[in-house]
Amino acid sequence: MNATLHIVSMGPGDSAYLTPSADQALEAAQTVMGYRLYLDLLGQRMAGKRRVDFELGQERDRARAALAEAAAGVPTALVSSGDAGIYAMATLVFETIEQAYPTACPNVEVVPGISAMQLAAARAGAPLGHDFCAISLSDLLTPWAQIERRLRAAAEGDFVVALYNPVSRRRTWQLDQARDHLLAHRAPETPVVIARDLARADESVTHTTLEALNTYTVDMLTVVIVGNSQTRQFGGHIYTPRGYHTKESLLATDEHG
Amino acid sequence: MNATLHIVSMGPGDSAYLTPSADQALEAAQTVMGYRLYLDLLGQRMAGKRRVDFELGQERDRARAALAEAAAGVPTALVSSGDAGIYAMATLVFETIEQAYPTACPNVEVVPGISAMQLAAARAGAPLGHDFCAISLSDLLTPWAQIERRLRAAAEGDFVVALYNPVSRRRTWQLDQARDHLLAHRAPETPVVIARDLARADESVTHTTLEALNTYTVDMLTVVIVGNSQTRQFGGHIYTPRGYHTKESLLATDEHG
Repeated sequence: MNATLHIVSMGPGDSAYLTPSADQALEAAQTVMGYRLYLDLLGQRMAGKRRVDFELGQERDRARAALAEAAAGVPTALVSSGDAGIYAMATLVFETIEQAYPTACPNVEVVPGISAMQLAAARAGAPLGHDFCAISLSDLLTPWAQIERRLRAAAEGDFVVALYNPVSRRRTWQLDQARDHLLAHRAPETPVVIARDLARADESVTHTTLEALNTYTVDMLTVVIVGNSQTRQFGGHIYTPRGYHTKESLLATDEHG
Repeated sequence: MNATLHIVSMGPGDSAYLTPSADQALEAAQTVMGYRLYLDLLGQRMAGKRRVDFELGQERDRARAALAEAAAGVPTALVSSGDAGIYAMATLVFETIEQAYPTACPNVEVVPGISAMQLAAARAGAPLGHDFCAISLSDLLTPWAQIERRLRAAAEGDFVVALYNPVSRRRTWQLDQARDHLLAHRAPETPVVIARDLARADESVTHTTLEALNTYTVDMLTVVIVGNSQTRQFGGHIYTPRGYHTKESLLATDEHG
């Protein structure tokens, strides 16, 4: 009796980044659930579907309701912004399965999408062109000490760093501390991308430096990319070269496609 | 006279993950360049275009040729698999601009796409559900000592780790060393996803453990995702919960969408 639950990534902003695979999953669904404003963005794709709107902050409710709908035999899509697998709904669905459906679980398929850091990177140039990491600065579910451990590791490893959830109304000091951890291992003039409200009418992508990065330069709709020791700013673009440049490496070809 | 060069991400495999934004960029192009097999996958999208095929390993030539075409006034698309901004063509174009077009550079726009780790994660569940990093094990352009520094940092920071380019015909020992660096800080039974030839007819996604991971389990078409201390395997899925679980966190709502 179980139907399939598709966890569908919308990508950032409007549907310019919604893949054909995501479109198929929406088409197959009879019920579509998600944050109200995301469902609005789907426009004609919602025609003929049962629509279940949720408010921000009801992530656990969304996961439970979507699983219950699929368990009742209704093909269902749960919509997530960005990539559902990166700081979004997918993992919450699997947590809920383990807690609430330990034996007979609906079939779940995740459809990947463009995460905010990827569009931020594309707009700026290619800052994620070499090894990078993604760190959420939200300490609501992760102790700050663990987040600091990651920031220190990212700094010591010279990773390009994408910072998600840099601030919120209640979290106002985390970004400044993150900057200081990174400044301990990289130059004050390290290039930084600040991308806000991507793929929306109010999109802004600005460039700054690590020393100039602070809580007042971002808001809840922002993703931040901090370059590593090799990241360069040239001709209005920020990019991280593929390797650590030596005379040999500049002449070499490589294996990437 | 300069025209725009679009660096277009195809996503993995066929066109199920090619975004409308990528489609638009291809449509706007008069010349489309890229690795021969990727251009074959574009099928009808190539109709009426000048097509310039490259072999594997000619990445620098592709970047130079695409920039020259756009600089000559021809709207051009340079195609890249996965996300052009992640271990792919985009950063090489910006490197080439800085070297060859220091003053008058063609307009370049990057169209992001689904990278291999994202589809691998979606197929397996949600292993990238919390902080993660991406590390390429190719030491052709990056000294192995720097890669080891990253592996140690990733292990110390308890990041989920996506390993790109785990082996090649000439690089046969790097994955075993990477595994040993991670084993120094995480359990032998840590869940691992091995994803090969994603979105192609021969796709395989298998689950293993960190201690069982070795060079013989992968090839050049593989991406590997190693879980962190929190990553769970349940009901055929591998997922990393959003936070570090405490009684409080299980009751909390959060800010993610």
